[in-house]
This record gives sequence, structure tokens and C-alpha cells, in this order.
Amino acid sequence: MTTTCIPIKNLSSDADSHRFPLDQWYVAGFSSELADKPIARTFLNRKVVLFRTGAGQVAALEDRCCHRSLPLSCGTVEGAGVRCGYHGLLYAPNGQCIEIPGQERIPSKARVKAYPVVEKNQIIWIWMARDEDAEPTRPAPDYPFHDDPRYKFGSGNYHYRSPWQLIHDNLLDLSHLGYVHLQTIGGDARLHMNAPMKVSSEGDRVKVVRLMPDSSPPPTYRAAWPFGEKCERWQEIEFDLTHLRIWTGAVEPGTDAIDDPDRGGFHMRGFHGITPETEETCHYFWSMSSTKHPDMPDNIDAVIQQTAFTFDEDRTIIEAQYRNMLAFGDKANWIDIHVDAGANRARRIVSELLRKQAAAEPADS
Amino acid sequence: MTTTCIPIKNLSSDADSHRFPLDQWYVAGFSSELADKPIARTFLNRKVVLFRTGAGQVAALEDRCCHRSLPLSCGTVEGAGVRCGYHGLLYAPNGQCIEIPGQERIPSKARVKAYPVVEKNQIIWIWMARDEDAEPTRPAPDYPFHDDPRYKFGSGNYHYRSPWQLIHDNLLDLSHLGYVHLQTIGGDARLHMNAPMKVSSEGDRVKVVRLMPDSSPPPTYRAAWPFGEKCERWQEIEFDLTHLRIWTGAVEPGTDAIDDPDRGGFHMRGFHGITPETEETCHYFWSMSSTKHPDMPDNIDAVIQQTAFTFDEDRTIIEAQYRNMLAFGDKANWIDIHVDAGANRARRIVSELLRKQAAAEPADS
Amino acid sequence: MTTTCIPIKNLSSDADSHRFPLDQWYVAGFSSELADKPIARTFLNRKVVLFRTGAGQVAALEDRCCHRSLPLSCGTVEGAGVRCGYHGLLYAPNGQCIEIPGQERIPSKARVKAYPVVEKNQIIWIWMARDEDAEPTRPAPDYPFHDDPRYKFGSGNYHYRSPWQLIHDNLLDLSHLGYVHLQTIGGDARLHMNAPMKVSSEGDRVKVVRLMPDSSPPPTYRAAWPFGEKCERWQEIEFDLTHLRIWTGAVEPGTDAIDDPDRGGFHMRGFHGITPETEETCHYFWSMSSTKHPDMPDNIDAVIQQTAFTFDEDRTIIEAQYRNMLAFGDKANWIDIHVDAGANRARRIVSELLRKQAAAEPADS
Repeated sequence: MTTTCIPIKNLSSDADSHRFPLDQWYVAGFSSELADKPIARTFLNRKVVLFRTGAGQVAALEDRCCHRSLPLSCGTVEGAGVRCGYHGLLYAPNGQCIEIPGQERIPSKARVKAYPVVEKNQIIWIWMARDEDAEPTRPAPDYPFHDDPRYKFGSGNYHYRSPWQLIHDNLLDLSHLGYVHLQTIGGDARLHMNAPMKVSSEGDRVKVVRLMPDSSPPPTYRAAWPFGEKCERWQEIEFDLTHLRIWTGAVEPGTDAIDDPDRGGFHMRGFHGITPETEETCHYFWSMSSTKHPDMPDNIDAVIQQTAFTFDEDRTIIEAQYRNMLAFGDKANWIDIHVDAGANRARRIVSELLRKQAAAEPADS
Repeated sequence: MTTTCIPIKNLSSDADSHRFPLDQWYVAGFSSELADKPIARTFLNRKVVLFRTGAGQVAALEDRCCHRSLPLSCGTVEGAGVRCGYHGLLYAPNGQCIEIPGQERIPSKARVKAYPVVEKNQIIWIWMARDEDAEPTRPAPDYPFHDDPRYKFGSGNYHYRSPWQLIHDNLLDLSHLGYVHLQTIGGDARLHMNAPMKVSSEGDRVKVVRLMPDSSPPPTYRAAWPFGEKCERWQEIEFDLTHLRIWTGAVEPGTDAIDDPDRGGFHMRGFHGITPETEETCHYFWSMSSTKHPDMPDNIDAVIQQTAFTFDEDRTIIEAQYRNMLAFGDKANWIDIHVDAGANRARRIVSELLRKQAAAEPADS
Repeated sequence: MTTTCIPIKNLSSDADSHRFPLDQWYVAGFSSELADKPIARTFLNRKVVLFRTGAGQVAALEDRCCHRSLPLSCGTVEGAGVRCGYHGLLYAPNGQCIEIPGQERIPSKARVKAYPVVEKNQIIWIWMARDEDAEPTRPAPDYPFHDDPRYKFGSGNYHYRSPWQLIHDNLLDLSHLGYVHLQTIGGDARLHMNAPMKVSSEGDRVKVVRLMPDSSPPPTYRAAWPFGEKCERWQEIEFDLTHLRIWTGAVEPGTDAIDDPDRGGFHMRGFHGITPETEETCHYFWSMSSTKHPDMPDNIDAVIQQTAFTFDEDRTIIEAQYRNMLAFGDKANWIDIHVDAGANRARRIVSELLRKQAAAEPADS
């Protein structure tokens, strides 16, 4: 037994998953994470083991052997499924136990819950259903930039000790860059705060756009692209409930128009999958795709490295914010300022989904 | 003050000890542990200080000075007893305060609870009584193998973050060896799982026997004994509520009969004292006695070392199992398989003892 | 963002501060602690950020930006106040937000609570009022010895995992020196325990005096002063609710009278500000002022170093004591001994203040 068992605690029951929007595709991880070992993760209060069978199929099961409750993530991956590390029960990707060593008959109850998963654009998506065993009602989201030859990407993930929506707030308002991220993508604080912010929404999506034509390139931009004194920056943020797409970048003055969707220049395309773990914690799966520059062959490595540093800074802030919210008792008396428009709209979308979900549930649940 | 104070927390009251079988001798430690310093341990929710007086007597007291509540285990051992490390009150092995520095009169209430203890076969046994101050109703168990010239032993102890009965489950079914302990005493998983298991019980004891004639010697056996290609293995497990005796070993084919109690060959005699600390934690005191081989003078050191490694593996599994039980909500829906017979019988014995104990208690307690 | 955010948790509400005596000056820190960074501390269950503006003014605010709850202690100090590290809101020492970057209008509600603070004798005092926003009704205490040319002092502070009154108990009875502090200021245990202790009180103050004429100088005394075989020691302890002044020392036999307030010799003047953090934790701000000796120029460094070591020993004891009190369930059955007179009197003063305070409060709070 050489597998390291990953402890996850303080969970309650599947009922707790109803505190989050259900019937949704959430990000469970990246393809690159699933090699020869199972991974233990908790999504929406449900403990899940993720694994890739020897045959290459990605699967997600309830992380618990039905015999004596050992996490299946402490076991080993085989061609046909995952084998428990205590007494060797073998489970297929559909959750059925298909072997009990030393025993011929396999009880029909010897099975665990399976979750629908899809691997697409090097992202693993998991369907969290409202009604147990319900199949997905729509395909998993596309994110073509991971497979786009114009870009190269790197990825990472964080475990956050904060509710998922605090990360939405952070990402939907990039005016904090000038205070939190001065060493990487910051730039001039007042330029950020004073740039007009255009907020729009459609269905469960929110879009925030901000253009900053007369910017000084911040450190990450300089490290990755041969900018001169000035550049024209854009920030386009799309919130899509379980993930955000943030397209930022800059062109050199006098080249492409800053609001031309086909503009060239230096691009940072961020993918941000925010998946609740519990009411108080979440997973943050990020990737950053960036454009190559012929004169700066290693620029993408620098972008990834500085992105990771930047996201460390965000985590420090957001976790400190959450601890303080706990200490002072929720956010009842937050004072809004001008930059909060996009974040507040996203919060209303989540609230409305939860309201509808609760209304649709039977009275006794 | 150079003593290190050992923190123990999350205790409630003596009433909590009634969640475990009482009027029993539990293992409190090994003789070799009690040198010139007191030891703090909690047994069945009761905080105890163990010490050996300068005169050599082993004692166990409530771990709390009656003056200002400092653990007596933060104090020092003297000829006559243990002296508190704050204001110097001195306590005799019977719990009576026998000196208050600077004060002539010693109040009769200046005393703490004392527990009956016995040192026997290099094991320290503590009597946990149902009725406070009741004396033991039978002698402490024998374990002659610690003093048997045929054997040499080593010992150790673990603090487990799991209820004590999960260790019973583990030890009463050695079929997990082929999955958990491949690097030491494992052997072939299917051979273990397929070997017939004979389970018997008498009173509060359970015995599980399994013979595996056509075995390949696992790594620990090879390291300790000059086995050839094959050996004939036996496993004899005796559960005795507060401790288990596990006699495993192997003979070379064509020598002694595998079921002869006087067989020679390579022996591993394990002593396993499992003492609840709280509902969620326990102590695991183990020793391993092994036979010497003339051609392999250091074989016992190898056995002890590999035994410790093996028990580390068990702890990893059992603690992961318990965390998962907490996360998923108890074991209501465990699916039994063929190997569970011995463990389930031991669980019934504990349940029955607790049922009788509860029935015998006055209604208001 | 290079500031390290200090987590403080498990707080509830301002109502919880009523479990401590209010309308009092508590110690918040020492002048030397407030340089160019804000400090996060919790006093009486209230989270506070302490800072010194660029203009030199010391201020104490509720440690929470009114916008999105980030601790202000994660921000930066400027000439006019403290700036939040998330979106840049700037707060004046009176708690008013005086700048919201990118927004002209500042809502009147954009403010946080400010606490009265006074910097005096290199100590920062904070007024904890019963009625929110009430001004101090008396000046902060004096402690002239920090500014007295006869003395040199060093200071430090501890975070204690124990209620504040356990430190009062410890300091009001120095008979523990012979058991806990043998390596520094201990001396002979029995001499300490047998010396007569004179306890007096007046209003909310308690004074404990103990004279030990025929003492052997303990290690710290020898390290700091050229004592011979014997010395004449005194201990004068003054308890003043939020802080204690402890004046200990010794004269050489045949010089000044041991009870002459103008005696010379070796002095240790301890200042001990004990400020509750929560019901279970507290701050302990200490300084030690000592007399210089012409032949031992570095003696004060030795005194400070050994004082810190001594206070480490106290913390070990007191935190172990408190953990044990939690385990065994409060102090209902403490047995008093002769040395407890001073400490018990201080406990009665605190109880009486809390009783009056509760009686004066409206029924619904």
C-alpha cells in the first residue's frame, strides 16, 4: 500500500449539495491530472473518487467502498476500474462491484454511486444532478482555446478556504489589480478604478468589459511581450455560473483597434472553473493560455509563473476576507461601490437559481 | 520546569467511560515506558497520570492536582509519589495528598482518584471499574511469552484517530494482508482470500484460524528465516475483549505439521492491547515476540522493524476508513463479505456487554 | 500585496465583550510595536486594527473594510490613515472612509468603529466602553518607570490559550517560583512557601507583599548583580484590574532596610498588562525594568533574556492548567491553600464588577 490517502472531512449528506445550483456541469479537474492514481475530491459536499481506467476511460464514483467504507481513492487503478486497498473489491466505472476476492457471489447491493463525467478540451466536467441518477440534460461546455494552435497553456488548481462566490466577486471586478497585484498584472490603480466598466447579462451569463487605452504595461506584460512605454489594454470577463472566461491583453498603440475581437497583440485567456467543495470551501481550477511572440520564445512560461503568483495573492486576500466575514458575522452590511456591478449581477443569478431549486423541491426535503 | 506537558483535550466526564465495557483490565502501557517521568494518558475518557515511584511501585492517578488543576503529569516523580509542578503538592500512589509546602494542615479532601494497576509480564494493566473505587474482581491477564526464553520481543504503541473496534475488525481478518501489507507479511492476495477460515467463540472470546499450506514466504518471513520456495503458514487469532493474541508463522514443508501446537519453525507472536481513549480515538499497544534462528542472529530486529512498518500501513488505512465513515455517516449500510465472520462475532460480544451494562445502571445515570 | 494577514477567528459579536469588565483602559501594545505596518489584535472579542499614521498618530479601528470585509490590517498605512489592500478605500483615524478610488461620492455609512487610544509611557492603552461610542471617563494609567532614568527596560508579549484570570492567579502568588522557575528567579521552594504573605486591598486594587530576608540569590539575581552568599529579597505585587505592577528585588545584607521604599540594590520592576482576547484566550504584554550596576554593564540584557525564559515557563504551566480545566470541567472543586489569598481577592473584584455591570444592563441585552 503506497498510495497516500487524502483526508476530507466535515461533510454531512447528499442533501447538502442542494445548497448549490444543481443540474450543472462543474469542473472536476484537468486531463493532465489523471494518470495512474485515483484522485479524491469533494464537490458540492459529495466525496468523489476520480480515476482513469487502464482503458483510458475517465470515471467518477462515490469515494467509499461499500464493504468497510475505505475511500476508493486509497486503492489502485486497473484496466477495468478501481480496486479497494483494504480487501480488494473491484469497481467498474458505473459503480458496480465486479469482483470480491475469495467470494463467488457478488450481492447486487455491492455498488456505489457513479457520476456522469465528460473529458473535453482537456477539462474534466462532472454533472451534479438534482435528482439522483438523472442523466445530463445538455452537453458539457466548450473551451476551444486549450486546443487552439495560436495558444499555449498551463494550468493549476487551488483549494480555497472560502465560499465559491467570493472568487466570482474577485474575478468579476478586476479593479483590485492595482492594489493586490502590483508585482505582476497590476498597473496603475487609479487608471483601473477610473476606466468605464460595461456590464451586460443574458440568461445565466454576465459580461464585464473595460478598456484602458492609455496604460503602462505592468510587469507580466513586459516580461512576455516587447511593449514600449504605453499599451492599450482590454479586460473581457464572461461569467457562466460554474466557470469564467477572462480574456485580457493589450495591443501596441497604433496597431489593432482595442475593441476589435480579431485584434492581435499579447493575449491572456484565463479559464476559471470554480467548484464548491462545501459551503465554506471550494476548488479553483485555472488555466492560462497565452500568445507566443517570435522574439520571446519562453514568454509563455513567464506568463504561467506570474499567473500562479498572482493567484496566490488573490487567495491570501479572499481567505482573509472570509475569515473576517465569519468573525464579524456575514456580509449583511457591505457597502457597495461603483466596481461591484458585475459581481452583484452574478450573485443575483445564483440566488435566483437556488430560489427556483428550493421551490421545486418537495416540502419534506 | 523541564518536563514537557502533553495536551489531551475533548474529554467530558467520567460518565463517558460507560460507553465502553467496564470492570475490565485494559492495557495502560509497557513496563519499559515507565522510567523517571510521569506519563499522561487518557483511557475510556478518563485522564490518567501513570508513574513509577522511586520505590519502584507503579501507580495511576487522576491527572489533575486538586489545588489548581495542573496535570500531575507536568510534575516530577519522587520516592513517595508524584509532586505537582506548580505549587509542589505531593501525592501518594493511593491519591492522597501527603504534603502541601508551607502549610501544616492537609485537608482530607486534598486527594485525587487512584486506579488499580498491575505490572505483569512487562505489561501495565489498569482496572476500569463500573462503580468508582471498586476493587478488581479478577486477576489481570497473563501473557507469558514476554518472559519465555524461546522468544525475544520488541514493542511500540500508536495513538489512533479511530474508534477501538476498527482495530479489532482489522486484526480479526488477516485477509487484508495481501492488499495492505505486500511489502512485509502480505503474500499472495488470492491465497489469503481463498483459505478456509475457522471461526469459534467461547464466552467473551473469539478464535479465528486459517491455514495456508502452499504459501510463498512473504518478505518479512524471508528476512527472518531461511525459507525455500514454499512454506506452510498458519494464522491463529484470539480476541479477548481488551487485547488480542495473534500467533502466526510458518514451517518448512515436510517438517512439523502445520496444525501441531508444538510446531517449530518461524513464529510471530503478536500481543495487541487496544484501549479506548475516547469514542473517536484509541491506544494500540503492541509487542511482537519472535523465534531466533541460529544462522540468522539479527532476525528479530528485522521482524520488529518490519512489524512497525506493517502497523503503520494499518493505521493509514484505518484512520482513512474512519474519516470516511464520519463523512458518509456511520456504517449502517456496510455490505458484509465472507471474511467478516470473526470481526462481526467480536462486535456482537462488545454490544452485548454494553447492553447488559446499560441495563444494570440506575435509570437516572 | 506583501503584508501578511493575521488570522483571528472564533469571534462572535460585540455583545460578547460584556463578559469582561468594561469602561476600562486595557493594554493594546507597546509603542515600539507600531512602526510602518498595521497590527491586527482582538480585545474582548472585538477585532481591532492598530496603526500609527504617517503623521505619528496612533489609532485603533474595527478591523474590517465596510466594502467587502477584508481586514484593514491587510492594508497599508499612509499619512492620513490606513488603506484597504483590496480596492483601496482609505480610512481616517476616526473611522471615516475618506477616499473611494474611482468614485466621487463617499456614502456617510462608509465608516468603521473607532476606539479611543492613548499612548503614554511607551504603552498603548485602549478604552473598552460599555456604551458604544462613549468617551473615556478617566485618564489612562501612569507607568513612569519606562521613562525613569534609573531603569532600563525590555518588553515582549504573549498570546495565551487561557482565560486572562489564570495569569492573575499566577502573578498574585509568587510561591510557584520555587517549583516553576528554578533555573531563573526561583530560589528555595520552602523559603518561598513559608515566608509570611501580607495581603491588602483598596477599591479595585490588591496588594501582596512578601519579605524573605535570609535568601540565597537565584540564578537571575546572580547574573545581574554581584551578590554574595545571601541577600534580602522582597516581592511587592499590585493588581489593578487590567494590569499588575510587580516590584521585586534584593539588597545585600547590612545595607538598606528590606521594607524601605527607597531601598537600593537590585530591582526588577515588572509591568504586566493582561488583556482578554476571548473567553478562552488573552494577551499578555510585559515589560521588565531593571537597575544598572556599574560593574556589570550588560546586566539588564541578562535580566530581560531570563525574564522571557521565565515567562515561557509560566505559559507552559498555565496553558496546561487550562486544557486540564476544560477536560475535567471548570474549577468548581479547587482546594484552596494558604498562598491563594491574593489571587482569590482579585477574583472577587472581577466578579463584583461583572455582577454590577450585568445588573446595570437592560434586560434584553
